[in-house]
Order: sequence, then structure tokens, then C-alpha cells
Amino acid sequence: MDITNETHSQHISRQFNQELEQLKTQLMAMGGLVEKQVQDAVEALLEGDSRTAERVRDSDNAVNDMQIQIDEECTRVLARRQPAASDLRLVLAVIRATSDLERVGDEANKIARNALTLIESDRHSRGMVEIRHLSEHVRKMLRDALTSFARFDTRLALQVLHEDESVDNEYTTATRSLVTFMMEDPRAITSILSVMTILRALERVGDHADNLAEHVIYLVKGLDVRHTDPGELDESLGK
Amino acid sequence: MDITNETHSQHISRQFNQELEQLKTQLMAMGGLVEKQVQDAVEALLEGDSRTAERVRDSDNAVNDMQIQIDEECTRVLARRQPAASDLRLVLAVIRATSDLERVGDEANKIARNALTLIESDRHSRGMVEIRHLSEHVRKMLRDALTSFARFDTRLALQVLHEDESVDNEYTTATRSLVTFMMEDPRAITSILSVMTILRALERVGDHADNLAEHVIYLVKGLDVRHTDPGELDESLGK
Repeated sequence: MDITNETHSQHISRQFNQELEQLKTQLMAMGGLVEKQVQDAVEALLEGDSRTAERVRDSDNAVNDMQIQIDEECTRVLARRQPAASDLRLVLAVIRATSDLERVGDEANKIARNALTLIESDRHSRGMVEIRHLSEHVRKMLRDALTSFARFDTRLALQVLHEDESVDNEYTTATRSLVTFMMEDPRAITSILSVMTILRALERVGDHADNLAEHVIYLVKGLDVRHTDPGELDESLGK
Repeated sequence: MDITNETHSQHISRQFNQELEQLKTQLMAMGGLVEKQVQDAVEALLEGDSRTAERVRDSDNAVNDMQIQIDEECTRVLARRQPAASDLRLVLAVIRATSDLERVGDEANKIARNALTLIESDRHSRGMVEIRHLSEHVRKMLRDALTSFARFDTRLALQVLHEDESVDNEYTTATRSLVTFMMEDPRAITSILSVMTILRALERVGDHADNLAEHVIYLVKGLDVRHTDPGELDESLGK
């Protein structure tokens, strides 16, 4: 049974409805924060701004605290309200989503740490164009995944699932050309490894956006699609 | 309020109690499966056994199906039984644990794929000793984490949390020496990158074992310790 924003506002208990809305709002705030961290970490690298990179590196406490707070709130709602059907799925989807967002925060942290290494080594490194492209791509995925969650929009969630494939290809191509550069210039190996770590972190941000989109489909349609091919989903969701 | 196996068997509804036990049993089966996959993938590499590596590479469906099945069972228990307190925490801990175990399965798959590349390149590569050591270390962590879950044993869970630090050090040391080899012999870069990917996958298995141990402490003590230093935990859990 599909749910929409309307269904959720028909709760007899207005208080309960507010609690569910509150969970969503908190999740969006957490999403906004980690999205910003990924963006700041990448821009710090591209602009050689070590102060910003340090700030991102040192700021994962805020994300962790948000995860713990939202999860506690979810547990309270489960215990007090004993939600069923779509309400239960919403709470479970929020719990899963905080776990993905927290890991996005970890990846932003990893990007910031490697950005600092690269900035300090003061060596104009290969791969900056690839980092910029991949970062724009996965940040759009993450933003769309969060929007699809906020709006219970499975069509947008499906788009995110389809994007992930092209992110994977982009990542593989970039990595391959970096291996060639390493062979040509072994002195650049250390810095290229840092670039590869950043690319991998970005690719994983894409994976987490992908997971978020799956949570949205679970939440709205009641389908667990975590291990289903996006092509099959187009059919079963009647795109 | 602490829970023990005894508390769980005092449920008035014997049926409910059986359902909770069943969840734990299924989780242990899933844990046993992914533990075996990690072991098989590493042994396939060390013995040059490409058939076994292919089998692990192609077997992640079984793990994925188990995750979906256990999570559905958890959702049913939440909806039907509306558990509170320690029962609710058990169900939530199982949901979190399946997510970690599924990712361990992904890492085993990654190890198997890179093992195949290394076996096919027919090149005696560096780093095999490091892979063997790290693999033994993280497999022990994973086994202990699962045992601590089965027995609600926070003392063992704490041990696992402490182990993770030494796994991280082992991983960093191994990676550093591999970078040196790459610089000395650029022709070995591709195979050493595969070795590094395998080491990183093993290190992540350790991270997931660490997460499992945190779920055990949450489940037994009601404390969310996901972002707490193990040293502080020794004090607060009165080790």
C-alpha cells in the first residue's frame, strides 16, 4: 500500500504526527550537514584551503551526535507509539538512513584528511578534474536522494538508483588512468594514492545515496529493493 | 537495566520468546556464512585456488536473501508484538547487525575478485604474509563479536572494541611498506594495488566486527556507544 504525505497527516493523534514529521526534519538537517561537509572537503582540496579541510576533519562529532539523537528519538517513538504499517516503515527507514548519512560524514572526513596531505605536499597532482566531476555527480545523487525522502518521491529515488551505475563507471575510468600515471612517474605514487582514496570516498558517497533511495522505496512501497537491479525496478514500480 | 538470557526466557508468551530466539539464531547463521566467505576468499588467494575464489565471488545472493528475510522477520515482530525495553533493543540490534554482516559479505566478495586478478596475473606478489595475519586477526574479531551477541556478553564485546585499534595499526603498517615496494618496482603497481584493496577489505571487516560489538553493548546495557572511545567504556561499563 502506497503512502503519501497526506496519509501521514491523517493521524488521529496530532502529537504522533508531529513526532514523525520531526524525525524527518531532523534527518534532513543531518543530510544537509553531511552534504555540506563533502562539498567543503572537496572545495578545500581544489582551492588549497587547508583551514577548511581541517575544519571538516575535526567536525564529525556533530554528525555522530545527530545520529545518536535521531536514533534515540526513533526508539522512543517505537516504544511509546508502537507504530504499524507505513508509520513503522518510516521509523525503520529513518534508522537506516542515519546509518548511511553517518558514513557519508566519515567519507567527508577521509576526503578532508587526504586533501590536507595533498595540500601540504605542495605538488600539483593529477586527478583534480576527475575529483571535481565525480564530486558534483555524487553530491547531486545525495541531494536527490534526500529530496526523494522528504517528498516520498519514488520516481526520484529510482533516478538515483540509475545514476549509481554511471558513477561506478566514472570512478573505474578515473582510477585506471591514475594507475598509468603512477607507472610513468613513481615519485607521484604517494600523492596519486591520496587522490585515489578521495575518488573512492566519493564513489562510496554515491553508494550511500543509492542506499537512501532504496530506503525511500521501502518506506513508500513496502518493498525491500536493496538487492534488486534498477532495471527490474522500473517494471515492478511501473515507471 | 541489564538483560541476560534468563530475562528473555521469562516472557509470558512462549511464542514471542521463540520468535526472539529465532531472530538470534538466524543472525548467527548469517554471521557464520559471511565469516566462512571471508575465510574462503583469503585461503583461495593464498593457495591460488581460483575455483573457490569464483564461488565466493558468485555467492552474495545467499547473504542478501538472508538479510532481507531477517529484516522482514524483525519488522513483523515489531508490528505484531510491539516489544518494549530490552526486547525492542534486541530487534533493533538485529536489524543493525544484518546491515553490518551484509557489508562483510560485500568485502568477502571484493577479496575474492581481487584474489582472482592476482591468481590470474600469475605473479608472486608482495603482501601475502600481511594478508594472512590481518585476516586471522579480523576473523577472530568477527567470531568474538558474534559470540558476544549470542551470549549477551559485554565483556567480550569490549575486547572486540579494543582489538580494532591494533587492526588499524597493522593495516597502516602493511600499507606503508607496500607503497615502498611500488616505488621500487613500478611494474608491480597493479598487483600491489589489488593486495592493498584486499587489506583494506579486511580492515573494514574489522570495523564491522567493531560495530557488531557496539550493537551488543546497546542491546544489553541500553547504551549507544557507537562514537565512544573504548577506553572510556572500560570505566563506564565497570570492567
